[in-house]
Amino acid sequence: MAVYPEQIERLCDMFRRLDGIGRKTAMRLTLSVLDLPEEDVQAFSQALIAAKTEIGFCKCCQNISASELCPVCAAPGRDKSTICVVEDFRAAMALEKMNEYNGLYHVLHGVISPMKGIGPEKLKIRELISRLDGSVTEVILATNPTPEGETTAMYLSRLIAPLGVRVSRIANGMPVGGDLEYADEITLRRAIEGRYSMNQTNGATAE
Amino acid sequence: MAVYPEQIERLCDMFRRLDGIGRKTAMRLTLSVLDLPEEDVQAFSQALIAAKTEIGFCKCCQNISASELCPVCAAPGRDKSTICVVEDFRAAMALEKMNEYNGLYHVLHGVISPMKGIGPEKLKIRELISRLDGSVTEVILATNPTPEGETTAMYLSRLIAPLGVRVSRIANGMPVGGDLEYADEITLRRAIEGRYSMNQTNGATAE
Repeated sequence: MAVYPEQIERLCDMFRRLDGIGRKTAMRLTLSVLDLPEEDVQAFSQALIAAKTEIGFCKCCQNISASELCPVCAAPGRDKSTICVVEDFRAAMALEKMNEYNGLYHVLHGVISPMKGIGPEKLKIRELISRLDGSVTEVILATNPTPEGETTAMYLSRLIAPLGVRVSRIANGMPVGGDLEYADEITLRRAIEGRYSMNQTNGATAE
Repeated sequence: MAVYPEQIERLCDMFRRLDGIGRKTAMRLTLSVLDLPEEDVQAFSQALIAAKTEIGFCKCCQNISASELCPVCAAPGRDKSTICVVEDFRAAMALEKMNEYNGLYHVLHGVISPMKGIGPEKLKIRELISRLDGSVTEVILATNPTPEGETTAMYLSRLIAPLGVRVSRIANGMPVGGDLEYADEITLRRAIEGRYSMNQTNGATAE
């Protein structure tokens, strides 16, 4: 008799399919649905369907979008000569939040990972190459600084550089607010290698 | 432009209303909904509605139930002379899983908490008292061993004891598998106070 009613178990199973949700959390979420007012549950149910059916991918940059062209690609003020390549839309959103980058994006939908059987053909690389029609002068590779992200960046740089487009990679180093004591060796090595002169900045050096 | 499409934000807002879900987790769950097949999202949407509209409360013990009487109250084999009083249906379910208790339950739907403005009148206490019609010989108070749970147990014992019903409280002590090193003082004190003789158990003492 130690079972929840079938309707509860069914909802719990659905929550478990979401990223990072185990049995206990799924049951906690399920039971908290029971505490919501019925209108909210109705709205929740509709929001699920709307998010799934009305959201697609921008035909240009492959980012998630509710319209054929995403707001970034459709914006007239953006610098169309620069494309920042990211692994997924979460990364694109993080860069957009910085409110400083004015170019376009390209979302790969993953990284090359032989371990997971993901080769270049499974990523949106063809779509990226087709955008390099002469108007693009720089491609910034902003895949994550993980082994897979580095491999993907390396692969893309070899593919794109011969096309006469400038290819750059985001910098490695200490995160701002970080503590050297807790940084890993590779990050520290990159931070030293990538050091920049402060002479010009603080103007301390006489001419 | 650093915003997700409105459909994404709306779903994210719904996830945030669930117990223990903040903005970041809500967005992670929302984005993982996009990765599910459309049939699964449809099923999820329907499961939400079903859980909310088809689940009510047992008219006897106030536990969640898909029928007027919950399976425990409706079972002919249960001992109807004992009622175990719990704070919520999660606690009732935990006790049921133990597969040993054969009495009935009563779900209070909360505990007395002056801090949160919850007085006895907001709990299912009237429903509990109305069940004490002479056939019930023992009420086990199994509210959590927290200040609110203890207060509620104390309140109920004063209310029920004069009715000539035996009132008991679940034992406090070391959780099985626990480590004395990490136990708090109050638990240790209760464990010592509630110690039981092992003479009879292991039969080591000569008559």
